[in-house]
Amino acid sequence: MTSPTATLLISCPDQKGLVAKIANFIYANGGNIIHADQHTDFEAGLFLTRIEWLLEGFNLPREVIGTAFNAIAQPLNAKWELHFSDTVPRIAIWVSRQDHCLLDLIWRHRAKEFTAEIPLIISNHPHLKTIAEQFGIDYHHIPITKENKLEQEAKQLDLLHQYNIDLVVLAKYMQIVTSDFIQKFPQIINIHHSFLPAFIGANPYHRAFERGVKIIGATAHYATTELDAGPIIEQDVVRVSHRDDVEDLIRKGKDLERVVLARAVRLHLQNRVLVYGNRTVVFE
Amino acid sequence: MTSPTATLLISCPDQKGLVAKIANFIYANGGNIIHADQHTDFEAGLFLTRIEWLLEGFNLPREVIGTAFNAIAQPLNAKWELHFSDTVPRIAIWVSRQDHCLLDLIWRHRAKEFTAEIPLIISNHPHLKTIAEQFGIDYHHIPITKENKLEQEAKQLDLLHQYNIDLVVLAKYMQIVTSDFIQKFPQIINIHHSFLPAFIGANPYHRAFERGVKIIGATAHYATTELDAGPIIEQDVVRVSHRDDVEDLIRKGKDLERVVLARAVRLHLQNRVLVYGNRTVVFE
Amino acid sequence: MTSPTATLLISCPDQKGLVAKIANFIYANGGNIIHADQHTDFEAGLFLTRIEWLLEGFNLPREVIGTAFNAIAQPLNAKWELHFSDTVPRIAIWVSRQDHCLLDLIWRHRAKEFTAEIPLIISNHPHLKTIAEQFGIDYHHIPITKENKLEQEAKQLDLLHQYNIDLVVLAKYMQIVTSDFIQKFPQIINIHHSFLPAFIGANPYHRAFERGVKIIGATAHYATTELDAGPIIEQDVVRVSHRDDVEDLIRKGKDLERVVLARAVRLHLQNRVLVYGNRTVVFE
Amino acid sequence: MTSPTATLLISCPDQKGLVAKIANFIYANGGNIIHADQHTDFEAGLFLTRIEWLLEGFNLPREVIGTAFNAIAQPLNAKWELHFSDTVPRIAIWVSRQDHCLLDLIWRHRAKEFTAEIPLIISNHPHLKTIAEQFGIDYHHIPITKENKLEQEAKQLDLLHQYNIDLVVLAKYMQIVTSDFIQKFPQIINIHHSFLPAFIGANPYHRAFERGVKIIGATAHYATTELDAGPIIEQDVVRVSHRDDVEDLIRKGKDLERVVLARAVRLHLQNRVLVYGNRTVVFE
Repeated sequence: MTSPTATLLISCPDQKGLVAKIANFIYANGGNIIHADQHTDFEAGLFLTRIEWLLEGFNLPREVIGTAFNAIAQPLNAKWELHFSDTVPRIAIWVSRQDHCLLDLIWRHRAKEFTAEIPLIISNHPHLKTIAEQFGIDYHHIPITKENKLEQEAKQLDLLHQYNIDLVVLAKYMQIVTSDFIQKFPQIINIHHSFLPAFIGANPYHRAFERGVKIIGATAHYATTELDAGPIIEQDVVRVSHRDDVEDLIRKGKDLERVVLARAVRLHLQNRVLVYGNRTVVFE
Repeated sequence: MTSPTATLLISCPDQKGLVAKIANFIYANGGNIIHADQHTDFEAGLFLTRIEWLLEGFNLPREVIGTAFNAIAQPLNAKWELHFSDTVPRIAIWVSRQDHCLLDLIWRHRAKEFTAEIPLIISNHPHLKTIAEQFGIDYHHIPITKENKLEQEAKQLDLLHQYNIDLVVLAKYMQIVTSDFIQKFPQIINIHHSFLPAFIGANPYHRAFERGVKIIGATAHYATTELDAGPIIEQDVVRVSHRDDVEDLIRKGKDLERVVLARAVRLHLQNRVLVYGNRTVVFE
Repeated sequence: MTSPTATLLISCPDQKGLVAKIANFIYANGGNIIHADQHTDFEAGLFLTRIEWLLEGFNLPREVIGTAFNAIAQPLNAKWELHFSDTVPRIAIWVSRQDHCLLDLIWRHRAKEFTAEIPLIISNHPHLKTIAEQFGIDYHHIPITKENKLEQEAKQLDLLHQYNIDLVVLAKYMQIVTSDFIQKFPQIINIHHSFLPAFIGANPYHRAFERGVKIIGATAHYATTELDAGPIIEQDVVRVSHRDDVEDLIRKGKDLERVVLARAVRLHLQNRVLVYGNRTVVFE
Repeated sequence: MTSPTATLLISCPDQKGLVAKIANFIYANGGNIIHADQHTDFEAGLFLTRIEWLLEGFNLPREVIGTAFNAIAQPLNAKWELHFSDTVPRIAIWVSRQDHCLLDLIWRHRAKEFTAEIPLIISNHPHLKTIAEQFGIDYHHIPITKENKLEQEAKQLDLLHQYNIDLVVLAKYMQIVTSDFIQKFPQIINIHHSFLPAFIGANPYHRAFERGVKIIGATAHYATTELDAGPIIEQDVVRVSHRDDVEDLIRKGKDLERVVLARAVRLHLQNRVLVYGNRTVVFE
């Protein structure tokens, strides 16, 4: 599918005829649906859907699609997002000292596993500057201390605006971002190096070792104002044994972190993730 | 969802408006869709969908739904099946000497993991008769030899008709069913104790051991006239190591066989499996 | 290996020559080691080993092996257990209303997946009595209330002694056993229906659903006086998605619970589990 | 464990006293064993062991350890290898057009996940030269055709000798190496992009798609003169569905290939892999 597509992500109270009404809107305007998926949460009485269709042959110019669809959405009390596959989102990757998630995202970007631009890397340490230079990405070293956190977050926010960033990826940033910042810039994906909700907070691998678990995991989730409690996008696990010391858990965990974060970022960029309450629907 | 539902499984050449046309058919007749999923195989130019809706409040009496939908299906060159959730399919389980898959299916049936009747067990050995008696299931011992295979298959076929069987589950039957039989009764799910297409044919665990694989698997598939080559419904795997001898592989494999076969039977009974070519689409 | 074996489980402060000293003890007495495995926890400075050898051809009569080995163990400050493969341990299975773990253990016992006797089932409900009768196992219905818990636990303890029980398996017993009881009878394996330490306590599947996790798990561990915090023997997981409601999680979880508990019981009965601190070494 | 260690990999016909004799050899010379593991293949009547001990405090100078141990090994008909942890093996990575396995190995090397030198990259294509330059590794472009294969293999062999290469890693080399070459240089690890023995040979992902499997895998194995039939070191798998087209299988497979190859290389470099017959014992 190289020709550009439009994608609608919709959630609304469940009722009869939703699939028909939405599909008719596409069909009546000459659209060819290439992907449609929906889910009904019967407890919540909520209908959620993702519809993607070819813009080629679609009779509505893209700038009016939103207005036109709104006429259908409003009576349904629907929340919706409209995305175009040829609009390239801009990502800022935040890192600390570890490079594995950063390098992995950059490699996947170059391998065209997802469509985005990565113009900006922000770090509280200078260590990964050379990687940024090597790939021609701007690197801003913004050291964080208890004292300067708020003013530094102001700088970070300025940079996100200045670079027109759509998504922040916390690729092992190892710092807590304040609720205030998250409220101002909510589009943040974080990788947590445990199988949440196990081992919330710091040093999950050390605590996993102490607890003697037989499986460790990693979790990619949207950052919310409550630490490590945001909607989970993706998780994966790997077996460990008594032969694995903390260093082994860290090493094995890195492979999980790379893959889980990359999957989550890709799903998000393909507009396959719909958040409701503190949960996600992932239309794979 | 206790109130009865209707489910349409449809496949047809891809074209514009399919989702709309099918959804409109349900909506126009007052149906409330509770599950809809579709898939397009762009290489094959094929559209496949599963739609399930509540019969309660649906304006068409069930006996005319098929005729009514056919008016839509024919111009689309669509193949379709219509199922009702309150029609209880009848299963015959074919076994040999091993009881683990049989007991597992019976337990899940009693635990209401799937809706079906199990009136008949057929075996080429007498060993599991007591299990059949214990659960009040008719047990027919039909020993198979090279010489008597065809006449015995005739008896088996008679029994399937006599008991109005909809689905045969080969729960470690360990016998090759002839192409002729399969053509006469195509609704057969088999569990193969390897990760197909690896180790097609006999003694997969012994051959897995000899090959020194680090992972073994099991595969549930529809039986076709070509041995172990039918459409795969479900597969799963488990790690093994040099410490596992053939007996360990067999023991670990049994756990896979039970779960993989049960999942496949459940998906089939819920009309979630659509076969095209030699592949399946599983609408989970 | 049908001929009987002896197994030593040993843990002691790490020092030079431990492997040699222990292996020499077996060899000097004509023993043929068929399985030897060891692990050193360098942080804890602890050496742990499991050695199994054929009794056939071993020059020490089994009743003096312990005394003889003690002469080596004492100067090493070693803790050790000695087990004989032809001593059949006696298991009491404690259940509540759910039968899947009970039936699974009984099936594996009959399938000779582990060697043990199962003379006793204890339950706080009458529901599973028929299963006990069907397999000729004594069933004691001991209802538990806040008020009668202590006296009922006294009855339970009497039964364990009366039946010479070596191991209690909590196969979805769904009741908290008091610290006092556990101190009196510490050999207890519990299956917890979550990926511990996630969702400690009650209703883990409901809480997993609320949290929107993408993977659920089950954990088999030794019961300790701290709830759900005992040494973990085995864990496993399965993927779930937004399409799975709480009932689906429970159904998928049952398959995990059966397999994880069975693996843990088997490992324990084969004397492959060595506990130190709150961790286990599992010599597979 | 930063202080250097010696490791013995031993295989010999099973008999009494092997553990004692080998452990005594270490202990008698003042060695402190930090890792010992063994396995007995009772069908083959073969005993296999790996013993690692600290050189610090060991009374034999390393140049005579082999001779001294041989006195024990010969009467036992033992095959053995002796390795020192501070001898850094030299790796040549062979690639074609794809970079993911190459970059992954380089990243892990820099992250110190394994100890080795990577002085040489050989490719039948020029594409990855820039990566080699970027990391200061010599890159030799040796194009292969049906006609020139033998003479080019002669060049490749010269380079391996010239660079004192201990191990060749075929990191998606996509060319068949001749039996003649493998006999001259047997230390070769290959990554095959399927769950062997499924889909031996070319285009496994396309064939996996055609077969409609629900799980795909990758296999790291030693190259032998029979294509894709060498001893398997490591395998892993990932779930796929009808929604995954061939490109998705290739993308998901890359993540498997990276991890599986890296694990195998690491295990080999840590001298944890013992080959016998066409199988491996992996002492993890």
